[in-house]
Amino acid sequence: MRVAFIGLGSMGHPMACNLARSDVELVVYNRTRSRAEDLAGLGAAVAGSPREAAEGADCLITMLADDAAVSAVLEGEQGALAGLPRGAVHACMTTISVAFSRRLAERHAGLGQGYVAAPVFGRPDAAAAAKLWVVTGGPKDAVGRCRPAFEAVGQGVLELGEEPGQANSVKLAGNFMLAAMMEAFGEAAAMVDKAGVSPGRFLEVVNGHLFRSPVYENYGGMIAEQRFEPAGFRMRLGLKDMRLLLEAAEASEAPMPMGSLVHDRYLTGVARGYGDQDWSAVSRVARQDAGLTE
Amino acid sequence: MRVAFIGLGSMGHPMACNLARSDVELVVYNRTRSRAEDLAGLGAAVAGSPREAAEGADCLITMLADDAAVSAVLEGEQGALAGLPRGAVHACMTTISVAFSRRLAERHAGLGQGYVAAPVFGRPDAAAAAKLWVVTGGPKDAVGRCRPAFEAVGQGVLELGEEPGQANSVKLAGNFMLAAMMEAFGEAAAMVDKAGVSPGRFLEVVNGHLFRSPVYENYGGMIAEQRFEPAGFRMRLGLKDMRLLLEAAEASEAPMPMGSLVHDRYLTGVARGYGDQDWSAVSRVARQDAGLTE
Amino acid sequence: MRVAFIGLGSMGHPMACNLARSDVELVVYNRTRSRAEDLAGLGAAVAGSPREAAEGADCLITMLADDAAVSAVLEGEQGALAGLPRGAVHACMTTISVAFSRRLAERHAGLGQGYVAAPVFGRPDAAAAAKLWVVTGGPKDAVGRCRPAFEAVGQGVLELGEEPGQANSVKLAGNFMLAAMMEAFGEAAAMVDKAGVSPGRFLEVVNGHLFRSPVYENYGGMIAEQRFEPAGFRMRLGLKDMRLLLEAAEASEAPMPMGSLVHDRYLTGVARGYGDQDWSAVSRVARQDAGLTE
Amino acid sequence: MRVAFIGLGSMGHPMACNLARSDVELVVYNRTRSRAEDLAGLGAAVAGSPREAAEGADCLITMLADDAAVSAVLEGEQGALAGLPRGAVHACMTTISVAFSRRLAERHAGLGQGYVAAPVFGRPDAAAAAKLWVVTGGPKDAVGRCRPAFEAVGQGVLELGEEPGQANSVKLAGNFMLAAMMEAFGEAAAMVDKAGVSPGRFLEVVNGHLFRSPVYENYGGMIAEQRFEPAGFRMRLGLKDMRLLLEAAEASEAPMPMGSLVHDRYLTGVARGYGDQDWSAVSRVARQDAGLTE
Repeated sequence: MRVAFIGLGSMGHPMACNLARSDVELVVYNRTRSRAEDLAGLGAAVAGSPREAAEGADCLITMLADDAAVSAVLEGEQGALAGLPRGAVHACMTTISVAFSRRLAERHAGLGQGYVAAPVFGRPDAAAAAKLWVVTGGPKDAVGRCRPAFEAVGQGVLELGEEPGQANSVKLAGNFMLAAMMEAFGEAAAMVDKAGVSPGRFLEVVNGHLFRSPVYENYGGMIAEQRFEPAGFRMRLGLKDMRLLLEAAEASEAPMPMGSLVHDRYLTGVARGYGDQDWSAVSRVARQDAGLTE
Repeated sequence: MRVAFIGLGSMGHPMACNLARSDVELVVYNRTRSRAEDLAGLGAAVAGSPREAAEGADCLITMLADDAAVSAVLEGEQGALAGLPRGAVHACMTTISVAFSRRLAERHAGLGQGYVAAPVFGRPDAAAAAKLWVVTGGPKDAVGRCRPAFEAVGQGVLELGEEPGQANSVKLAGNFMLAAMMEAFGEAAAMVDKAGVSPGRFLEVVNGHLFRSPVYENYGGMIAEQRFEPAGFRMRLGLKDMRLLLEAAEASEAPMPMGSLVHDRYLTGVARGYGDQDWSAVSRVARQDAGLTE
Repeated sequence: MRVAFIGLGSMGHPMACNLARSDVELVVYNRTRSRAEDLAGLGAAVAGSPREAAEGADCLITMLADDAAVSAVLEGEQGALAGLPRGAVHACMTTISVAFSRRLAERHAGLGQGYVAAPVFGRPDAAAAAKLWVVTGGPKDAVGRCRPAFEAVGQGVLELGEEPGQANSVKLAGNFMLAAMMEAFGEAAAMVDKAGVSPGRFLEVVNGHLFRSPVYENYGGMIAEQRFEPAGFRMRLGLKDMRLLLEAAEASEAPMPMGSLVHDRYLTGVARGYGDQDWSAVSRVARQDAGLTE
Repeated sequence: MRVAFIGLGSMGHPMACNLARSDVELVVYNRTRSRAEDLAGLGAAVAGSPREAAEGADCLITMLADDAAVSAVLEGEQGALAGLPRGAVHACMTTISVAFSRRLAERHAGLGQGYVAAPVFGRPDAAAAAKLWVVTGGPKDAVGRCRPAFEAVGQGVLELGEEPGQANSVKLAGNFMLAAMMEAFGEAAAMVDKAGVSPGRFLEVVNGHLFRSPVYENYGGMIAEQRFEPAGFRMRLGLKDMRLLLEAAEASEAPMPMGSLVHDRYLTGVARGYGDQDWSAVSRVARQDAGLTE
């Protein structure tokens, strides 16, 4: 099985490393070629263009920043669409918009290529440990063809249905639940802080005895300790995901007032200059608005 | 050690049963006397008035609906204040307002009595199993004197500080985090439902592989299955707690926009007639607003 | 007709001056007696206690900060309730809570006294010019008995019904509409400012050609010019009114999400230290959150 | 002066009629040709394609539903871009997104054509009466060349600056202020209704004596009388404008929480089936959530 992998950022690079260490035959492409060099050391081929990477591949994986970045590597003379064989499958593992994902499915269908939306849950450390969860939306056989690649980068594949929008919606909704948890914890921690209880102590109480969730432990700990750098997931990307969430919610006529609130808090955080901190820094907004020094 | 216990509702009754089975000497009082009868069978004395219950007690526990109900059993000629000995401690385990809790502390101090705010986390099933968590705000020695009673009803005592407001704030903030989780899940589940993913499947993905929290399992399950009766905690009481949260937030100048949003969603739920359903029925608001049939 | 007037603050003082200049016989009381001295110069009697002021009055007017202040002058041995004759009417012109207003009506009824809720629209300059609008809730005959006093301080009396809550609700809802307008203008002005259009120019467009409202002109002008001192109506009082609004909304099960939002923006403004500026300074929150220097 | 006018909908048709009655030489185009027939009767030429309409024009006016509709008439072999002479000016009077407006400016510049953003304030009745207000963003000379056309359809031209985004932002912000007013009035009217004051009476009080604005009179009246059909401006379009507002706000990093709230209320209204009613029907959401029968 030959896999083309495009996008060697903070998530894509460790994923590609895990693919290189697996049984698949790997070709990688990255706009900044230097990011690909250690992969060559692991036995991967390094392509000079998206098209070259995609030629002869059974499965093309993209792991990029957003809709525009995916579009940029697919289209054009040197784009991956021009190289990908008929019958091969593109698995888009980036968190992209539901609408764009549906358009991609049509675009590939028109070229006789398959398409699977396959976003992942997990941060860079989970990517490095091959512990991601891959959620998929696409035809069963197309998912099946990509499965060896998914298993090389994650601890499990969760098939949500045959429509790409099913996977993209669940990914965005999941990120919303994380963001909502952070905003809730940020507000609650600021409030109890003013009543004389430290955020760390509050976290012990609500997570230690109530939620008992690794997510609360992780993000709650970052918030309690004001530990927002280096960013595991940048606030700017969190804001983007909340925008995609609201676009999907509007398109399906499902009002999400808490989604809007969380979106606005991220936008406020970005406007205050925290766009490159971890997205848990959204808690700074509530803390500052309560007049707490940091 | 002699314990007076007032308030035998859905939480108070199982708590009193656990006290009756423990080493403490128990006197109970309930406005509707019939609720006290089986406790007599467990060896508890049944008092004819709050005052009579409090006479000779080392520790007075109140477990009632709200500030007004607590006030009603304390004040007046037959009220518990008139009976409670100097040096005894009132542990208010009801979720009451921060401001009222502080006034109670002063009120008792003026009478030479001790006061501890001691709200609990847990629903009726946890109360029955003596698995509550008791969070306390009050002087160390006063907490210490009540500790045998707390241990008889819960699995642990979490001391938050010497001020009653510390415990009440944490209790309200904890309930807010539960409510925020339910609203977030309700909105997310409605959105993915419209994209063709069932709420139950969504719960499997986000809790099975992300949050891994018994709270999400429990409330998410109720929401996914639309199972809101019988109520473990009635929406009307959830609304009351969100109001107390916002009062505390305003008093301490800590804005909580997500707290306001959640409050309004509970108010909408109550206005739509779900006040006596479980507070997880708040998810019905998002579902209906998305035009989903139930 | 003898009128007792209690409360000589920034609104009450000019109102009492207008009463002193009218045909009514006026007795005034203020906790800080020096505020009453110029009224003596206008022919008013100055009482030494609320009770003394109320003795022999046909109509008792209170113009104080909030529920607690009204309660303080009514109750107790030297309180106005003890002095007010049977058959006389208390017109409470303060913006108080709907619930407290209803309790006042009952309290007076028990003493054979009448009660009218009579809050006013208008700022101190309108009070000085006797240009207030008085909105009333109370029995027709009780309103009728106070009418000469109302006409001496205002340009009109708007009778809303026989229930005090009708007047208090309309007053709070009216203040909410003013507050909502300020928040909307603040957000819009910050947004267009970042697109290169000054708030003043934006105001010219939307009020000059669209709303054509003196309210927009007035508040919009203050916001565009960042002119928040001296305060016509302090933000802290605006916050109080939004709290009373939300209490009334909750009691009547009418969710007001925009009311909650505006409340939180005022709370944020107070937490940022603008509590003593004019309530139009709420616009500073949107401006700062957009990263605009002021 | 030769004017090409594309888009003969509920706004465009009366505007084109006014142009036909003025001194300019008019060519019109509409996808559904029958809408153009009465204009022929007024002396306008009727073109068979956008390109044909634009050929030889000094000024091209588009008055269409949204970004996509504008794009559709401009691009392609029969599109207006292909026909519009170098040096001619396109005045886009549709409410479009700020980002698209900026792209249009660049697109035209590349073809040696001018571009002015020229959205209007006013509903169909104002369009029929030539009482629109035209707000412009574009180079002074380009605005000047279109001015005779603007004056034929409106009562005034408000020049906001040389950037198209200045006009589009002000138009969106103005619509937001209208929408915020309607939501505020809807919430307030529902609340006072539950206190026993009719929405119509409330409107008399707040507009008659406070706001004194024709906008409040107009929209408040529609809301008080539940008169939402025929739609002057459809809710679906109001929702679109709020989406464009939030896109512009995000792009300029100016958080607008009230904008988000209003957006969500329109989305809820659309999800409840009122998309084709007047956008003042957003008030039905607050009314229903308060449990009021309509």
